Amino acid sequence: MKKIYDQIAKLKQYSYLQGIVSWDLETEMPQLAHKQTADAAQFLGDIYYELITDPTFIEEVNNIDTALLSEVDQKVINELKLEIFKIEVIPKVEYVAFLRLLNESHVAWVEARNDNNYSIFAPFLEKIINYQKKFISYYGYEQHPYDALLNEYERGMTVSQLDPLFDMIATKLTPLLKLIAEQEPINNEFLVTGPYAVDKQKEFCHKIAEKVGFDFRSGVLKESAHPFSMSLNKHNIRMTTHFYENDLNSAISSTLHETGHSLYEQGVSDDLLHTNLDSGVSLGIHESQSRLYENYVGKSLQFWEHNFEQLQELFPEHLSNVTVENFYKAINKVQPSLIRVEADELTYPFHVMIRYQIEKEIFSDEVSVDELPKRWNELYKEYLGIDVPSDSQGILQDVHWSMGSFGYFPTYVLGSAYASQIMNKLIQDIDFDKVLSGEFSVLKSYLGEHIHQFGSLKDPDELINNFTNEKFNPEYYITYLFNKYKHLYNI
Amino acid sequence: MKKIYDQIAKLKQYSYLQGIVSWDLETEMPQLAHKQTADAAQFLGDIYYELITDPTFIEEVNNIDTALLSEVDQKVINELKLEIFKIEVIPKVEYVAFLRLLNESHVAWVEARNDNNYSIFAPFLEKIINYQKKFISYYGYEQHPYDALLNEYERGMTVSQLDPLFDMIATKLTPLLKLIAEQEPINNEFLVTGPYAVDKQKEFCHKIAEKVGFDFRSGVLKESAHPFSMSLNKHNIRMTTHFYENDLNSAISSTLHETGHSLYEQGVSDDLLHTNLDSGVSLGIHESQSRLYENYVGKSLQFWEHNFEQLQELFPEHLSNVTVENFYKAINKVQPSLIRVEADELTYPFHVMIRYQIEKEIFSDEVSVDELPKRWNELYKEYLGIDVPSDSQGILQDVHWSMGSFGYFPTYVLGSAYASQIMNKLIQDIDFDKVLSGEFSVLKSYLGEHIHQFGSLKDPDELINNFTNEKFNPEYYITYLFNKYKHLYNI
Repeated sequence: MKKIYDQIAKLKQYSYLQGIVSWDLETEMPQLAHKQTADAAQFLGDIYYELITDPTFIEEVNNIDTALLSEVDQKVINELKLEIFKIEVIPKVEYVAFLRLLNESHVAWVEARNDNNYSIFAPFLEKIINYQKKFISYYGYEQHPYDALLNEYERGMTVSQLDPLFDMIATKLTPLLKLIAEQEPINNEFLVTGPYAVDKQKEFCHKIAEKVGFDFRSGVLKESAHPFSMSLNKHNIRMTTHFYENDLNSAISSTLHETGHSLYEQGVSDDLLHTNLDSGVSLGIHESQSRLYENYVGKSLQFWEHNFEQLQELFPEHLSNVTVENFYKAINKVQPSLIRVEADELTYPFHVMIRYQIEKEIFSDEVSVDELPKRWNELYKEYLGIDVPSDSQGILQDVHWSMGSFGYFPTYVLGSAYASQIMNKLIQDIDFDKVLSGEFSVLKSYLGEHIHQFGSLKDPDELINNFTNEKFNPEYYITYLFNKYKHLYNI
Repeated sequence: MKKIYDQIAKLKQYSYLQGIVSWDLETEMPQLAHKQTADAAQFLGDIYYELITDPTFIEEVNNIDTALLSEVDQKVINELKLEIFKIEVIPKVEYVAFLRLLNESHVAWVEARNDNNYSIFAPFLEKIINYQKKFISYYGYEQHPYDALLNEYERGMTVSQLDPLFDMIATKLTPLLKLIAEQEPINNEFLVTGPYAVDKQKEFCHKIAEKVGFDFRSGVLKESAHPFSMSLNKHNIRMTTHFYENDLNSAISSTLHETGHSLYEQGVSDDLLHTNLDSGVSLGIHESQSRLYENYVGKSLQFWEHNFEQLQELFPEHLSNVTVENFYKAINKVQPSLIRVEADELTYPFHVMIRYQIEKEIFSDEVSVDELPKRWNELYKEYLGIDVPSDSQGILQDVHWSMGSFGYFPTYVLGSAYASQIMNKLIQDIDFDKVLSGEFSVLKSYLGEHIHQFGSLKDPDELINNFTNEKFNPEYYITYLFNKYKHLYNI
């Protein structure tokens, strides 16, 4: 294993460099430095590719007798084999052409969205989909071609597991949404007027990130156009949020969301630090941690009962006459809307379901690229009752497809569903009310013990199974949403 | 040249990466990420070393017939030869041991300074000096062994050129300093009490950097413990300042200083971007640009006549009763003090002269490491009339020696002296009062034409000669200080 770990160390050096360059790109790089930054990213990508496809290294990996290895070493080898397989299975000439296509597609997508002109993006999307279909044939699948793509983002995830989740959303949550539409709307005017001074928002977000357990000795909270978090390693976590003067909840919610991701990474065991297993295992499990902090913590009444006063002190001119109950209601207001990233907790899964539906149709050849906008708008009308006024606010709103990411969207809802299943177990084991009253270290340790420490040592299904003594079960999620919103709207 | 430029492109990629990692280290890295960052820096340093000492590359460089090359290509080759010589002349085993020693020495210096215990640092300093003496014998020199080190930071600079400069400081400025000490002290109380809100300082510093010509599309202004600036390339300039609530002038002064450095880098010709000549030529010339903006611009009455009102508007509670004349006097107050980096424009060269004197004595074996604190304190008493109360505030105050940097300090004063020589020519060619009244683009173009555009294409002496039609002449500097301070103190 010595030679393999040496190569892993080298790969990790280049991953770190890729990370720091991309962090700079997102948070600091001046406009005209774009070319230098893009060149560096390309340079590093090429080196990474060469290292991972180095024939001597691949031989080492393939020839090692895993039977005699420790659990960690075995998993290290398996992960390498998978990574190598994924790269090798695609002919290099196609891989390079695909990457070039993605660069051009991203530019085309930006232009299409700015000009509200789907036809600029459509030919690129067509090509991307054709590549993906080819890749699916290389990867292989058992039941549904889309499974091969789902597996890219959530290992082992399949249409047969996701259909029940999205079916329940469609069949069970739709009536709830209709009921809510009939109720008196919640007044959230004070939240979205402001102006809420950004420096005060910053101060508050910094405090709550720290309060719930983010370790600022091992991480940074900064600002970027779109909030994200990344791990350079467990001692070097970078996360961002975004502040709006006329939306007090956005930055708070994003901060808790990204903190959830970051706590996962900060909690990975030191024993994995030198391996390729030292980061969260999947997008879905990651999203379960972020959603747990964003929604179960940050959108709960109990949390705000202990923290609203501080917020009032920062913004007395806006909040002194607001009760904590009204604040809680306002941040949970349900309002069907056009844009996924601005959606509330209940309508959010519908946005994802629509994308899931469309992606499934694409890869079973049920819809053509030209028909996509029409299909998109139909589904928005059907499920959210919304007329999509323009493709920019419709099918062109998300960056994912222009980056070749199909099968990614479902992980957003999967994460919420995992979170509910986890919470169901968690409240049996620890006192969650106490957590919300301020004892966040209990929550951090608990999640650390059952999820964080393992990094990528255990696959998502194994993790969920071991932790909750049950396979993935979407019912908890539906039940949770039902209970929460029925109570909130007095239905 | 094709192969050579390919290798240069690779070297530049690694320089960029080293730069971005060190920028992160200085401005953002969380505490516990120190190891990862240090490892990455080491990793990149090793690769850079391998690339520059690659035998095939060295052969290419040595075998090329420079006679047929363009001016730029010739200089590219000469610079490479010098860089290779400097590395090759030191046996690798010594080079590596020296780098290791520097790492340990830096730690020892920090501890020594914190504990006010010179003896912790002394044995490391002794070793560093011994290495430097050995390196001097490798580099070679004509007259004074210290010349070999001076040449590292300012090509061609020698004791025989610097002695007249520092002699004049000692003989001519000392009486001026004594005269000033007899005058009524300037009241700068309002400047150093505050508190001056940091966010307002930030806003102001950002504005003046932009006003004098810093292009924020190609650069960033941020905060760090010690202000600095670096160029990743001309479109990717990073500079920092530092804010003190009880020192309004510090951040403004640092910002203009660093902006001077940055304008130099942003002004390098596009034609040099792909070469190893795309950055300022020497520390001395660089410092001439920073000092020009810091002192000739930022410490002039005319500049403040056009900008003080804005500052008053930001800080009415502190400045509404202060006149622009009093502000101008306060930021120029002369006050002998212990710490170099806090010194005013007139006492600053004395701090450097003392270090120059000591370094010269070290490398002509006139003083031992044990005797250094005593020597330091003697010189501070002699020239600044100051009793040094502790080594922490004395000989341990600067980081340079712990980093192996001997011969560096003189460039600080050399820069000021260059600036005065440049200014003497400049005011004959352009209307500097108009510049200070707001037409900073004229200054930027003028310096761009005579200095910035050349990057490292011309050596310092050539640059000064071509520009001012005269060799380096320290008299302008002494005359400038004399005139300025006699006028300021009504002597």
